[in-house]
Amino acid sequence: MEQVKTFLDDNEIPRQWYNIMADLPTPMKPPLHPGTGQPVTADDLTAIFPMNIIEQEVSTQRWIDIPDDVLQKYLLWRPSPLYRARNFEKLLGCPVQIYYKNEGVSPAGSHKPNAAIPMAYYNKVAGTKRITTETGAGQWGSALSMATQMFGLACRVYMVRVSYEQKPYRRMMMNTWGAECIPSPSNLTQAGRNVLAEHPDSPGSLGIAISEAIEDTVTSKDTKYSLGSVLNHVLLYQSIIGLEAQKQMQKLGLYPDVVMGCCGGGSNFAGIATPYVCDKIHGKQVKIVGAEPTSCPSMTKGPFAYDFGDLAKTTPLLPMYTLGHDYIPAPIHAGGLRYHGMAPIVSHLVRENFIEPRAYDQMKTFDAGVKWARSEGFIPAPETNHVLAAVVDEAMRAKEEGKEKVILFNWSGHGLVDMASYDAYLSGQLQAYELPDEEIQRALLAIKDFPKP
Amino acid sequence: MEQVKTFLDDNEIPRQWYNIMADLPTPMKPPLHPGTGQPVTADDLTAIFPMNIIEQEVSTQRWIDIPDDVLQKYLLWRPSPLYRARNFEKLLGCPVQIYYKNEGVSPAGSHKPNAAIPMAYYNKVAGTKRITTETGAGQWGSALSMATQMFGLACRVYMVRVSYEQKPYRRMMMNTWGAECIPSPSNLTQAGRNVLAEHPDSPGSLGIAISEAIEDTVTSKDTKYSLGSVLNHVLLYQSIIGLEAQKQMQKLGLYPDVVMGCCGGGSNFAGIATPYVCDKIHGKQVKIVGAEPTSCPSMTKGPFAYDFGDLAKTTPLLPMYTLGHDYIPAPIHAGGLRYHGMAPIVSHLVRENFIEPRAYDQMKTFDAGVKWARSEGFIPAPETNHVLAAVVDEAMRAKEEGKEKVILFNWSGHGLVDMASYDAYLSGQLQAYELPDEEIQRALLAIKDFPKP
Repeated sequence: MEQVKTFLDDNEIPRQWYNIMADLPTPMKPPLHPGTGQPVTADDLTAIFPMNIIEQEVSTQRWIDIPDDVLQKYLLWRPSPLYRARNFEKLLGCPVQIYYKNEGVSPAGSHKPNAAIPMAYYNKVAGTKRITTETGAGQWGSALSMATQMFGLACRVYMVRVSYEQKPYRRMMMNTWGAECIPSPSNLTQAGRNVLAEHPDSPGSLGIAISEAIEDTVTSKDTKYSLGSVLNHVLLYQSIIGLEAQKQMQKLGLYPDVVMGCCGGGSNFAGIATPYVCDKIHGKQVKIVGAEPTSCPSMTKGPFAYDFGDLAKTTPLLPMYTLGHDYIPAPIHAGGLRYHGMAPIVSHLVRENFIEPRAYDQMKTFDAGVKWARSEGFIPAPETNHVLAAVVDEAMRAKEEGKEKVILFNWSGHGLVDMASYDAYLSGQLQAYELPDEEIQRALLAIKDFPKP
Repeated sequence: MEQVKTFLDDNEIPRQWYNIMADLPTPMKPPLHPGTGQPVTADDLTAIFPMNIIEQEVSTQRWIDIPDDVLQKYLLWRPSPLYRARNFEKLLGCPVQIYYKNEGVSPAGSHKPNAAIPMAYYNKVAGTKRITTETGAGQWGSALSMATQMFGLACRVYMVRVSYEQKPYRRMMMNTWGAECIPSPSNLTQAGRNVLAEHPDSPGSLGIAISEAIEDTVTSKDTKYSLGSVLNHVLLYQSIIGLEAQKQMQKLGLYPDVVMGCCGGGSNFAGIATPYVCDKIHGKQVKIVGAEPTSCPSMTKGPFAYDFGDLAKTTPLLPMYTLGHDYIPAPIHAGGLRYHGMAPIVSHLVRENFIEPRAYDQMKTFDAGVKWARSEGFIPAPETNHVLAAVVDEAMRAKEEGKEKVILFNWSGHGLVDMASYDAYLSGQLQAYELPDEEIQRALLAIKDFPKP
């Protein structure tokens, strides 16, 4: 019998998160206050985040202790197993060993609870009574619904309308965990009403939903906002994926040649990648690849620029690869990857050549996903299919080069609540989509008056 | 930090299944050929099953080796983790420790692949090219779709129509794994056409779907039939659940006071229960409880009798608790528990007082399920909610009695593809349903001319 899974016992769970900010060889540009053009201060953020989270957002401390109450909730599904994809390896017939962290074992089915649990915890400690957020595919909204329920907080989720309609089960999951779920754009906020006035049939976007959630926060009592990706503290919480993977690979006596993840806002990718980026900064040879959709190719086609995180321009200006805060991505099924920007940390690491971005169209990603399901059994989320396309790509390169390679990637979640997208793919209703060049011109126009990083 | 999970490494997976037939203190009645009234022979079954599976169906050998090719597929998700439900314990506030096998970690989301993998394997070895089956909630159909794909067999699933409509994602899962899924009753078989002629709006039942799948098998080339529960060989394959649980409980230095599972056809329950029934037969003190729905209460209200396994009377006569082969259960959402009979092995053990049956209505079960989701995170399948109701019941008894108890149960699967049933529950559309007594009169009438066991 050939070993497939490598477990860590509950008492082997990492006790600290890893903060890549401590190890960057070149400093990142700060977020800017859009009014003053000056770096944002902690005070600028207190309207939407509690101070304990703001401190982590700006921290440069390398290791940050995970509170016991967070660890205890993590143990509901963490440490997640490290799998070897032996059947997929055989199917590809390439000289590669393929290992993956199975983040689909969480109650919400993805990596998202890694960040939702500490956010709910820190808000609870800070006295918050209610949290608002946005969600694309619904993975983040459902994870936060579960986490807030576990810590006794109320929760409202603004869900991108196209996903709300494509994935009704996500809304039902949020309700089952006790949260409200509102399709966005909605009539509940000025930001939503503005969009609906101009585009009554708007499919929505993460940028719009963020604007709605923030407006709800600043106009409500005892309410704070949570963002499911992009920001430094979110990436910090996700580092537990990579830290566990390093322990597990060490048990196997292996070090990966390639580390991969799919990229929407950047959090699951950074989760597996940043502990390896740290190694790379300190001289280790390792290729680190982020896979994004050709329909929303911020890293591979967008300019690196200061831009807003949301459509209504309520966030600070963030230094990142962006397709423009007014970009409404094509309604591809990988809703979790439909974001116009990329996490500043990930963007910085791409600019500094620690990370290599690649873009894949949805036909290639579903082809890889169906092959995976039919060999490994587990049906991947449409987002996860993007990293699978990159894994296939990398395996084929290894074959062409005649080199043996160890690939490690983050299997960010399962697709059991996304079956309609497989149905669309299998019945021939999907097609490839590449962002047209004129969209880049629009992006450049959207950001032209902002400071340059 | 308090330990939550107990893993077994891949190399600790059991290498043999356990066959309770070797340890029964009193012999079971044999299945009868309906034409002759004589015990069925292996030859009677060759039209629908391959000989290697028939041999296991009638085997009285205590331990049966699990083939390497089956073990290697089991390792995709087995050994499944043993969890302690610490948050649910706290919520209940009773003097109990609650442990459960999480069978939701399989690719299909339930225990069903434990049986589907060996069935596909043995059919492959026997030269079968195509398999037909029936499915209620869709758990079995999707598990067999995955398993047949992995062993290169074609597969057609007849899915009970009410579930087909309530759970469209299950059909899409089967398609993603490469199988056909047909709502039953269908026009593809005489059995289906007969039902539709009389009841064009029939919601279907497992009994009807079985008739269709068997008819399809005997009228097609190189085709065999698979049943997802009830029969001895299915219960044999599921014994791996209990065997793993015993190893894991042993690691914790514990022996359960109570072992529980939900009961439809009986396979997930027998899976966790039979290794403990063996202990009980040999003198160990342990309570073993099977939880069934009040809408389909074969064990608690049905007579023990010879009856057919399907509506069209194509199966042998099985000695079991039954509500009559012509029973069409109320369309409660726990589709996997909507079967008129109970596995002969489980029925025999109930008669011999090794197993205590209890019935719960769906309101109690969903109440328990929502409490579980909000404390433990994982959303249970509606079927699994029945054992949760029994766990709550048992915990309350422990409190009343002032006794400390260790409860072990089988968490048969997650409910992520059953969210519409939670939506119905949370929006007040469900109600309790108890089988009316006149239905028992109908059941007695249905079986009155059959031999008595």
